[in-house]
Amino acid sequence: MKAQQIVLASRPEGLPTAAHFKQNSVELPAIQAGQFLVKNLWMSVDPYMRGRMIDRKSYIAPFVIGEALEGGAIGEVIESQHPDFPVGSKVSSMLGWRSHYISDGSDHTVLPNIPLSESHFLGVLGMPGMTAWTGLTRIAELKAGETLFVSAASGAVGSVACQLGKLMGATVVASVGSDEKAAHLNALGIDKVINYKTCDDISAALGQAAPQGIDVYFENVGGEHLTAALDNMNDHGRIAVCGMISQYNDTAPTPGPSNLANIIIKKLKIEGFIVFEHWDHYGEYAQQMGQWLATGQVQAEQTIYQGLDNAPSAFIGLFEGKNKGKMVVKLTD
Amino acid sequence: MKAQQIVLASRPEGLPTAAHFKQNSVELPAIQAGQFLVKNLWMSVDPYMRGRMIDRKSYIAPFVIGEALEGGAIGEVIESQHPDFPVGSKVSSMLGWRSHYISDGSDHTVLPNIPLSESHFLGVLGMPGMTAWTGLTRIAELKAGETLFVSAASGAVGSVACQLGKLMGATVVASVGSDEKAAHLNALGIDKVINYKTCDDISAALGQAAPQGIDVYFENVGGEHLTAALDNMNDHGRIAVCGMISQYNDTAPTPGPSNLANIIIKKLKIEGFIVFEHWDHYGEYAQQMGQWLATGQVQAEQTIYQGLDNAPSAFIGLFEGKNKGKMVVKLTD
Repeated sequence: MKAQQIVLASRPEGLPTAAHFKQNSVELPAIQAGQFLVKNLWMSVDPYMRGRMIDRKSYIAPFVIGEALEGGAIGEVIESQHPDFPVGSKVSSMLGWRSHYISDGSDHTVLPNIPLSESHFLGVLGMPGMTAWTGLTRIAELKAGETLFVSAASGAVGSVACQLGKLMGATVVASVGSDEKAAHLNALGIDKVINYKTCDDISAALGQAAPQGIDVYFENVGGEHLTAALDNMNDHGRIAVCGMISQYNDTAPTPGPSNLANIIIKKLKIEGFIVFEHWDHYGEYAQQMGQWLATGQVQAEQTIYQGLDNAPSAFIGLFEGKNKGKMVVKLTD
Repeated sequence: MKAQQIVLASRPEGLPTAAHFKQNSVELPAIQAGQFLVKNLWMSVDPYMRGRMIDRKSYIAPFVIGEALEGGAIGEVIESQHPDFPVGSKVSSMLGWRSHYISDGSDHTVLPNIPLSESHFLGVLGMPGMTAWTGLTRIAELKAGETLFVSAASGAVGSVACQLGKLMGATVVASVGSDEKAAHLNALGIDKVINYKTCDDISAALGQAAPQGIDVYFENVGGEHLTAALDNMNDHGRIAVCGMISQYNDTAPTPGPSNLANIIIKKLKIEGFIVFEHWDHYGEYAQQMGQWLATGQVQAEQTIYQGLDNAPSAFIGLFEGKNKGKMVVKLTD
């Protein structure tokens, strides 16, 4: 059978465009003993994938020009000669950006049944949700009564970080890029929401939103947001550095904050982390989050694009603020 | 009797000059019960004092214009009506920048006898030495076999950090501002020393000096040194932020490093600290360092200026690289 896939056509400089992606088809052979055939149902687009489009050493290997892109995906086994992955199993993998593929089961997990769409295993029950939880609990050690600031707060990670912050007993201040996103977070009970595109000065706006100061900053953005956080951190504040999306498409080095001396003055701790290094805690997270989702204490929002053809647009949309919550692509009709 | 003292004449912008200091004399009254009179023998000048010349909220109150400056000092009790501070006692205090003063004993410590000049209680056995130890052991948790990078490495803190790094089993790479200082550190057994003033590119020089990468950076300088460290850190590297002397005299905001994304890519931890918050561990430090000094495993270098008149020059000299090791002012002939 033929599988459709999206390959990297060329390495983008600046914001990726449709021209950096190409769709083609590959002939899949018949499966052999120990293999199974997967039809992908959902695929994920995430900001970190931008880093893999650059040819450089990082925590994850760069994408190869002319080869299919990779990323989180949820599929269904439609043919199988593997006892652990019978036909009908729903599986998660890192083999997104393609309609079908053959696997021997390595790096595949059979998903449990949940009363929600399986697509949430790409979001709140997957890497982005686990990232929010890891940053708040294991990196920043947020405590009840503290003030948390979350940037890119309506994104896949940020929206979970905000809601977890409230469940952990913190006052939560969020930054987003539209009034519509701000209203949505307010409706979720987030204490104060800044629209960074319409405020004159993020640092001043943050100071007004959190006159008591910030104890923990969940950093997704970098640049002016980091400067604003450093200005407003309390003594012994912690910054969990998850991403710096404002810089992923920079074509020239962007100077960092001019107020890094606050690290000394306020005795701050700034720590970067990669969620995969904390994955042995996923079971603990998934059980807890499953309960919160079941009771409605966490809302799992998604923005869904339809069809593999639209996967590049979904990805590019991440950098244009097109998503509320997790951006996913539905690969079936 | 009259005491001579140095007061803050005006708040400097940029590098302080002699004009920002003024010497005057004050009449001291007779001591009363519970008081004692101290003649200062030595006083300390330290880079952090620059921050106290600015009128801003920080971890320590700003200096007041027209009042005597403050800083570490070693004095001798020459009159006493206090049972715990008999005549002849050597005491440490924060009441430097003056020839004599009256105390009730608060924030004063009677010094033990050591086979070295008491001035070392302002350096290797005092705040700067304790800072080096705290940063390496309690903040960065340097381990044997790792590579340590120290900037401002011939200064009061840096020279101790380098030597402690070697005693802890690390490979030590240092940055200094003259070939003479580099030769001196080489003679102390420091593995590689960069002269940042003569190398074209600190990051490239650091990469050559430590092709295995940096595990711990002891940050005293900021700016290009921080950029270079971020470029060369290994995964899970730690940066103990003690100071950013390159920025203390800036008159306009200086942009920070453009490569902060390394915090995520390399999963770095950057932590600022103030030694006074760790002072309950001073006894542990002093005992260990006393042994190292006695056996010659640590060399305690000093640069000594003579006389209270020269205290401003000594202080200004810190920012001009005039000191090797601890800069102190001898207040007696």
